[in-house]
Amino acid sequence: MTTSVNGVLDSFRERIAQIKSYEEALGVLYWDLRTGAPRKGMEARSEAIGMLSGQMFKLSTAPELGEWLTELEDHEIASGLSEIDNRLVRETRKEYDRSVKIPPKLYQEYVVLTSQSESMWEEAKEKSDFASFQPYLDKIITYNNQFIDLWGPGASRYDTLLDSYEPGMTTAELDRVFGGLREKLVPLAAAIAASPHQPESGILKQTFAKDAQKKFSLFILEQMGFDFAGGRLDESVHPFATGLNPGDVRITTRYLTDDVTSALFGTIHEGGHALYEQNIMKELIGTTLCTGTSMGIHESQSRFWENVIGRSKPFWNRYFGDLQKLFPSQLEVGVEDFYRATNIVQPSLIRIEADELTYNLHIIIRYEMEKLIFNEGVKASELPALWNDKYREYLGVVPQNDGEGVLQDVHWSGGAFGYFPSYSLGNMYAAQMTVTMEQEIPGFWGLVERGELLPIKEWLTGKVYQYGKLRTPSELIRDITGKPLDPDYLVAYLEKKYRDIYKL
Amino acid sequence: MTTSVNGVLDSFRERIAQIKSYEEALGVLYWDLRTGAPRKGMEARSEAIGMLSGQMFKLSTAPELGEWLTELEDHEIASGLSEIDNRLVRETRKEYDRSVKIPPKLYQEYVVLTSQSESMWEEAKEKSDFASFQPYLDKIITYNNQFIDLWGPGASRYDTLLDSYEPGMTTAELDRVFGGLREKLVPLAAAIAASPHQPESGILKQTFAKDAQKKFSLFILEQMGFDFAGGRLDESVHPFATGLNPGDVRITTRYLTDDVTSALFGTIHEGGHALYEQNIMKELIGTTLCTGTSMGIHESQSRFWENVIGRSKPFWNRYFGDLQKLFPSQLEVGVEDFYRATNIVQPSLIRIEADELTYNLHIIIRYEMEKLIFNEGVKASELPALWNDKYREYLGVVPQNDGEGVLQDVHWSGGAFGYFPSYSLGNMYAAQMTVTMEQEIPGFWGLVERGELLPIKEWLTGKVYQYGKLRTPSELIRDITGKPLDPDYLVAYLEKKYRDIYKL
Repeated sequence: MTTSVNGVLDSFRERIAQIKSYEEALGVLYWDLRTGAPRKGMEARSEAIGMLSGQMFKLSTAPELGEWLTELEDHEIASGLSEIDNRLVRETRKEYDRSVKIPPKLYQEYVVLTSQSESMWEEAKEKSDFASFQPYLDKIITYNNQFIDLWGPGASRYDTLLDSYEPGMTTAELDRVFGGLREKLVPLAAAIAASPHQPESGILKQTFAKDAQKKFSLFILEQMGFDFAGGRLDESVHPFATGLNPGDVRITTRYLTDDVTSALFGTIHEGGHALYEQNIMKELIGTTLCTGTSMGIHESQSRFWENVIGRSKPFWNRYFGDLQKLFPSQLEVGVEDFYRATNIVQPSLIRIEADELTYNLHIIIRYEMEKLIFNEGVKASELPALWNDKYREYLGVVPQNDGEGVLQDVHWSGGAFGYFPSYSLGNMYAAQMTVTMEQEIPGFWGLVERGELLPIKEWLTGKVYQYGKLRTPSELIRDITGKPLDPDYLVAYLEKKYRDIYKL
Repeated sequence: MTTSVNGVLDSFRERIAQIKSYEEALGVLYWDLRTGAPRKGMEARSEAIGMLSGQMFKLSTAPELGEWLTELEDHEIASGLSEIDNRLVRETRKEYDRSVKIPPKLYQEYVVLTSQSESMWEEAKEKSDFASFQPYLDKIITYNNQFIDLWGPGASRYDTLLDSYEPGMTTAELDRVFGGLREKLVPLAAAIAASPHQPESGILKQTFAKDAQKKFSLFILEQMGFDFAGGRLDESVHPFATGLNPGDVRITTRYLTDDVTSALFGTIHEGGHALYEQNIMKELIGTTLCTGTSMGIHESQSRFWENVIGRSKPFWNRYFGDLQKLFPSQLEVGVEDFYRATNIVQPSLIRIEADELTYNLHIIIRYEMEKLIFNEGVKASELPALWNDKYREYLGVVPQNDGEGVLQDVHWSGGAFGYFPSYSLGNMYAAQMTVTMEQEIPGFWGLVERGELLPIKEWLTGKVYQYGKLRTPSELIRDITGKPLDPDYLVAYLEKKYRDIYKL
């Protein structure tokens, strides 16, 4: 490689390291805001965050970065770059082009709009008053349509939004996988609802001391292979995971004394996100490739640990005794009863409270509506009625008001169109990977039954975690399972599990 | 004011806000590192901190900032600026000139040297091996001498270093005040040591549960008027206070189960720093004037609350009962015994463990040695013998090895020459302000005796806290007390207090 190319490569890498440093610092500031920063300091802190974000944006969109990218993209030069540098150039180019295509003034207006809109949404949800939120939603949709025009529509307009969260994902692909899912899950959910063998959930709704819950959360994380020298567990109102760097991955949980499952499965869920971030290869540290490859793959890891492992019978055969020791008077039942109680399927109105089966129907509803908005020009005013119709059709329930209906999620108020599919993609990726895992890890469920979870973490590190953004979601799922994403794995998993529980 | 001046003023103010934002973000990162950041993430975090510091330095030394300063310093323009803008220009000019005078390469070398030197010092202290540290100390002294040359020596070379921590302070002034102090305190300490009326300290050295200590720390902070909606108390190995902004001021303490005084007085001390930072006027938020005006004045506030109030008889007349309730079996003594136990004066080797009287002698020793280094050219190799001689002369004790002697403090290994005097300046400022307080706040000690501490906080807010860096240390002390700094106030305070305790 020539000296001049090396110079460009060095400048490029240094810029990436700078951008990553801002991301890491901002990550600490956001974590801090959500875990205990004093209320009165928020205003000045927001100024600081805004300023740092602005500086990061400047560095990410500077003309010289575009020039370096062009030089490094030259065919001959690119062929001499390492795999990591090549991927870094491609990732950076994508982000760069998206960012520079939006005029700063337009983006600034949008930032102000979404921040107002989020407050308006909070009030509107509280009062079930869609009308007050509708003009904001209309504007946000208009801005997103402008962004689609600037970025350039894919095969469909909505594809352009999907790509922000799940690189390479398309409406055509989602129609295929969600179609398969909906077709099978709607009748399955109906059959479950009609079953006479409904589990008892009473034992979960007693009083559970916070300290004991915390103890169990820490214990399970340690069993999963969470590295406490490279991470921590805190509390927050809305649990989240943040990978600042692989040696500093923080998760939060929420202890509800009247519901032991909230922290229990919440911790395992965030723990799954954390294992991903803690086990990214060292070579990616300090680069923007050092994070999960997409929202969908990230959710596949949290949902694999929460649902596939954490809500399985073998898991509780091993760990229920430990939980009973912490809550001897509350949990005077057999493991079978506990297992059934934590796996109740019931059509419901609220996504975040849904079980692992009907959850997917909540997502499909949102997906279909977002598609209508951006591909068919549906207006905000039409959304409440559409929402209620779809809930009646897929879940057999109808919201009494928009607060428990179309207003329930924060996502649209912040402009996060295209995000919802990630959750169900995560479920599908997880189910598909699990089948490969069962084939490749000898005695897979026996390991779970004995609490030997580390080989599972190691397998996932080798196949998923280590790569960070070095593989795309579709590359990962093909490399691991030998096939493209297939919704039948999730259907088969859910059918097997719930036919057994509900004796269908 | 003309449009062009307004434009310059806006640019200047925006730059200041940017610099302040970096300071605030870095403040959060440092707080986080010291209160619980996972060990394995430190390396990547250091990179991020280094990058942000570098960006901040660039913004602080950019040529355009120099040009804006020159424009705003124009006599006619300056006379039209607000008091805050004027002071901001002056402060920024001072920092700017200091920073741009150091060639970046020299500064970079110095940063590397001091970071190596701090590790070397830690090892050398551990092994009492001054020889291994000596070459580093020599180099650090050489660099500081270069800085003095670049910055320009004051009336004496050491003045230039003093000015970094205590703006306007000079060797001549310190000779005057420390001379007065030493002359009185050496014989007073000797008389105390010879007194037959030595207090009993046994009660303090029992086992004190951490939770109860924490409860008392929080209670006392609340009594002092610490605002928990604008601050928090955490734990760290080395207690500290950090004012991120007036709405987010964080302090830490350290609970030792075998020594109840560590967290007790440590919390009050840091609480004093915190009250200062929490009560700076709103108008200074987002500017670099929004912090304490000097190390010495900051220490005056922590030491006022810790020593003048927290180690006073009226304070314990009010609060000892509360402490007893938390430790009923450990504190089966009268308030007089407790008061005496917490005010034992004893010549000792280690500064950070010293009582409020002999502490000043530890500082005077360090001051005299720093003066010798920079004004008389004394070399690192001569320091251990000098150190031991001075300890024998002023305190009547001699270190058995350099670990408990010249190697005990971290400051010199990091190049912080000129810092030590701040501690005793704090004691002197505090004693002098107390006399004014006693005159201006009716029934001052009665308030303390009744636990009515808020009027004291209010008085200090009006006289000190609100101004941040809007007043210099010498302006403050003259405005408040009508006199320049006078060591006799501290001497009188200590004499009165300890003649009583030791029945001299």
